[in-house]
Formats: sequence, structure tokens, C-alpha cells
Amino acid sequence: MAVYTDVSFEELEKVLAGYDIGHARSFKGIAEGVENSNFFLQTDQGAYILTLYEKRVHADDLPFFLGLMEHLAARGIACPVPVRSRDGKQSLTLNGRPAAILTFLDGVSLRRPEVAHCAEAGAALAALHAAGADFKLKRENALSLPGWKKLAEATLARADEIQAGMGQLIVSSLKSLETEWPDNLPSGIIHADLFPDNVLFMEGKISGLIDFYFACNDAYAYDLAVMLNAWCFESDGAFNLTKGQALIAAYQRHRKLQENERAALPVLAQGAALRFLLTRLYDWLNHDSNALVRPKDPREFAKRLRFHLRVKSAKEFGL
Amino acid sequence: MAVYTDVSFEELEKVLAGYDIGHARSFKGIAEGVENSNFFLQTDQGAYILTLYEKRVHADDLPFFLGLMEHLAARGIACPVPVRSRDGKQSLTLNGRPAAILTFLDGVSLRRPEVAHCAEAGAALAALHAAGADFKLKRENALSLPGWKKLAEATLARADEIQAGMGQLIVSSLKSLETEWPDNLPSGIIHADLFPDNVLFMEGKISGLIDFYFACNDAYAYDLAVMLNAWCFESDGAFNLTKGQALIAAYQRHRKLQENERAALPVLAQGAALRFLLTRLYDWLNHDSNALVRPKDPREFAKRLRFHLRVKSAKEFGL
Repeated sequence: MAVYTDVSFEELEKVLAGYDIGHARSFKGIAEGVENSNFFLQTDQGAYILTLYEKRVHADDLPFFLGLMEHLAARGIACPVPVRSRDGKQSLTLNGRPAAILTFLDGVSLRRPEVAHCAEAGAALAALHAAGADFKLKRENALSLPGWKKLAEATLARADEIQAGMGQLIVSSLKSLETEWPDNLPSGIIHADLFPDNVLFMEGKISGLIDFYFACNDAYAYDLAVMLNAWCFESDGAFNLTKGQALIAAYQRHRKLQENERAALPVLAQGAALRFLLTRLYDWLNHDSNALVRPKDPREFAKRLRFHLRVKSAKEFGL
Repeated sequence: MAVYTDVSFEELEKVLAGYDIGHARSFKGIAEGVENSNFFLQTDQGAYILTLYEKRVHADDLPFFLGLMEHLAARGIACPVPVRSRDGKQSLTLNGRPAAILTFLDGVSLRRPEVAHCAEAGAALAALHAAGADFKLKRENALSLPGWKKLAEATLARADEIQAGMGQLIVSSLKSLETEWPDNLPSGIIHADLFPDNVLFMEGKISGLIDFYFACNDAYAYDLAVMLNAWCFESDGAFNLTKGQALIAAYQRHRKLQENERAALPVLAQGAALRFLLTRLYDWLNHDSNALVRPKDPREFAKRLRFHLRVKSAKEFGL
């Protein structure tokens, strides 16, 4: 949670000369997002976020990410909208980084969402899936099976340093996912990272979905499985069935799951848990002590993965 | 530039229940300030900063710092004002840290202030000195001669690791400052850290002075000497006489320097350079690699100190 690449006011002013969004009244680096450098920008016309994309977001993917947000916003999804420069561009280069100015959304993210929030978030996911259906650009999910295999290769040798048995857990679950991973589920644009961090609330209602930088084309039900992992476990590690029920039911009110999606949900939840276990493990092991961010604990998702491995049917998630 | 102690929205809501400033519309950690954790808080009634005071700011000093800002604001200085809770308190305890809610000021700090900005800042310093004159609380400058000696003792053994000759520079300048440091200059409340970072501008005019957490009672001219160090050197290390002239002249339009202050200015500038050299050196040598902040380069102030040691009279600063 920090700013990696600094931007001075003088540099900002040069950028703003190319935009029709007024003059800066306030400009501050914000401690948000593990991946990018973000600045809060208030002008006399409104509030914006200036994002500089650091190593994990590739400039080649920006037309997809920024185009997607523009597309979704035009279809009523409350998400940041890239502001186009006077000559029509959605992105720019600033201090050697690809960058963009996006509209700022009011609202706060919750640390401990309650049942009603889980329901709101489940409904928002279904709305996002519907709104993305006619988006023309495509992006493969870089963090699905082939990506997990690469991450496993890069981390396995040291996984047990973090927790005894973690290496074996990764190997065995990866092996079973390779045979069981479904490839025939309804697919389209998914968010792929819709954690409570990335959902803004105002007075109990969702005011915005943010951080689309893992969005891609993949199975809709996988996105739901990510959310079951991200929203429905308590801090003691227990799965909260009431939250699972609320989230899935709200999703299904807008998009009913097919039979093969229901059947696949336990495997999808395993895959989602493995994905966050592996990225956290990789970040933990490769943490640059000069980096301005504290890595997240991978063990949390090892525990969730073990839970999913014991699940016999989607009913145990609240379906 | 980071958030050390996190605050969840749920924790914020409990705090806001004790204040009359409305409901949170937005709440984000901001990457600002080396010393404290700061959050931008937008409510339906206005914009605020929630600050959690980390190790360098002692709870005992908060009545001085917060009282001073309240005092200065009441006398027309644009500075953050601590918001009092419904039961009249200026500070609270949050996640084990002393904390306060302050009004948020519009404006941007400049990386490379120009001559006109230096003049504005000099005038603002004189106004601050005048407004603080009748403030009742006192606080000793913890970073004057005795403080420098302690910092020198803690850093000397390794100073030459940073730059050959830095240890000798510290020893010799500390020795001469011990005999030459003036103790009979007009004194009162000083900011003691009025770097460009801590001055907000809007359309060329100052919209706010911030970060009063080094404020104390000391010689007014020392505060001016800090500013000569902080505002009037170019990135190539050269002193910009035009900026020095503008800053001093603007200060003197509001408060004329006495003869003994003029005479002392070179020594005061040495002391100010040594103060920032020593704190930066200490932070550099004691940098916790897990800290979320990059230490600043002490060599910059070694160079400025060497410049001041060659100065024969205050005329060379633009007086």
C-alpha cells in the first residue's frame, strides 16, 4: 500500500494541460493497491484517480482494462471510467510508466462485510457479468491452470518454510485440478479479483466496483468461486454458510447457475483458493525488503483450500 | 510515505459516532508524511485528515501541537484545525495510537518552487511567527544543539560509510556551533520544518501550511534559516541568491530582522543544515528494511552545510 513512482505537481500540471478536467486543487499519493501507484486528484471539476501502472500491469493490456471499464460504465456498472485526453487517448506515459486518469468513486470498502453486504456483492457480480457480455476485446486469464503451474514451480522448493505441508498441498491439489478443471462452463468477462477491498459501499449499497486489472475471459462461476473465498470466510478461518447462501442466492436472482456450474463449484473454489495461495506465496518468498508494501499471508488461503478439498457438493457453500 | 497503522472503515465508524462531522463518503490511506499514518476522510459535511501518531510524535506533545494549530487558525493562518469530538476532546486513541481528526486543506505542494513561491512562503513564515506570539503553551526544540549532539554520537561511527569526510564535517561543525550558537535572539513559536512539502499552493498563492509536528519555541531567525536551506538550493546543489533575496525580503516586509539576527544568519543556516543532515543520516543508518518509507539522502544537506561554512555574511543569502 504505497506509491512506487512519485509524480510531482509540476509533472501533473503538464499532464492536465492535455485534458479538459480543470485545474488541480489537491493531489496526494494514496496508499492503495499492491500493484500500482495511485494518486487522488481533486480538480475544480471533480475527483479523479491518476494511476501509474507498475510491473504487473502490462501496457499491452491497458486497452482491454480501460476499454472494459468504459464499456461497463456505459452499461450502468458503477466503476471508474478512464478520462480521455483532449486528443482522445485513454492512457499516457508518465515517469516511464503507462498511466491513466480515471473518475474517482465515493464509497468505502469494508473489512468485515456482513450477510447483507455479501448479497449486494453477489448481485453486483451478476450485473457485471451481464454488462460485459458484449465487450469485444478478449484477455486470457493469466492466473489459471498454466499460470498456477508456473507459480508452483517457482515456489514449491520453499513452500514448507512458510508452513509444513504447504508444498504437498500445492502439488496434490494442482494434480487433481489438472484432471478435474472444467472447460465447458458459460464464460465471458470476469473480474477475477472481487475481494471486499474492491467493492465500495455507501449506506449499505454498492457505490462502486474497482480494480479491474485482473479482469479477463473465463468461466462466470469461477468469479463466483473467487467471491466465496474472499467474502464468506470468518477471521477464525470458518466458512460462513449464511454469507455463502446470501451471495449465491443474490447472484442467481440475476443469473441462474447451470447444472454443470453447480457441479463444478467445489473444484472452482479449490482453484480460486490455490490461485491466491500461490500469488501470495510467490510475493512472500520474493518480497523485496525495499518494497513499500507488506506481503499478505499465504497460509490463510492454504486453510481455505483445505476446506474446499473436503467439500462434497456446492450445497456446502450455500447453493 | 505510507500507512503504518491501518484503520478499517468499521473502526472509523465507531470513531465518527463521537463526532459531529457526518457520515463517511470516502476513506483512504494517503502516502504522505514520514512520521505518521494519515487517512483522507470525506464526509457529507467536508474533507478531513485522520492522523495516527507513530513513534516520533509523543502523546504528551499533542496538546501543544493541536492547541497550536487551533490557535493559529483562529488568528487567520491557513492550517489544519483539529476537530473536537462531541465531548470536547482534540485527540483520541485508535488502534493503540494517539490520533486526531483535522480539517483537510486544498492545495498542492511544489517540488520546484519558483522565486515568487519563495516570497509567498517567506511572508507566510512571518505571519506564522506573529500569530503564534500569544500562544500560551511551550515546547523546547528537541532538535537543537543537545539533540544534535545525541544524533552525532549515534551516527558518527558510520557517517563515512555514506560519504567520505562526513564524520569530520559533523564533528567540526558541531564544535564551532557549540561556541557560536546564539542564545539571545528574538524567539517564539517556530514551525521548524517549513519545507516545500509542508506548504500548499493554489494558483500561486498559499492555501495552507501543514505538518506542525516539529513546532516548538526557538529563535525566529532559525526558522528562516531552515527555509533558506529548504527552498533556495537548486537540484544541482547551488544556492539560488534570487530565491534567498525574495524569501528574506518578503519575511522582512512583515517582520524586520534585528541586527543580531542578521549577524547570526550564517551560523543559524549551518545549524539548520546540520539538523537535517543528522536526522537523515540517523534514519538512513537505522532504516528498518521492513519500514514502508524510503529514507532521504543525507548527502544533500552535507553539501548545503559545506556551503554555509564558506558564507562570510548574511548578504550571501540575499539579505
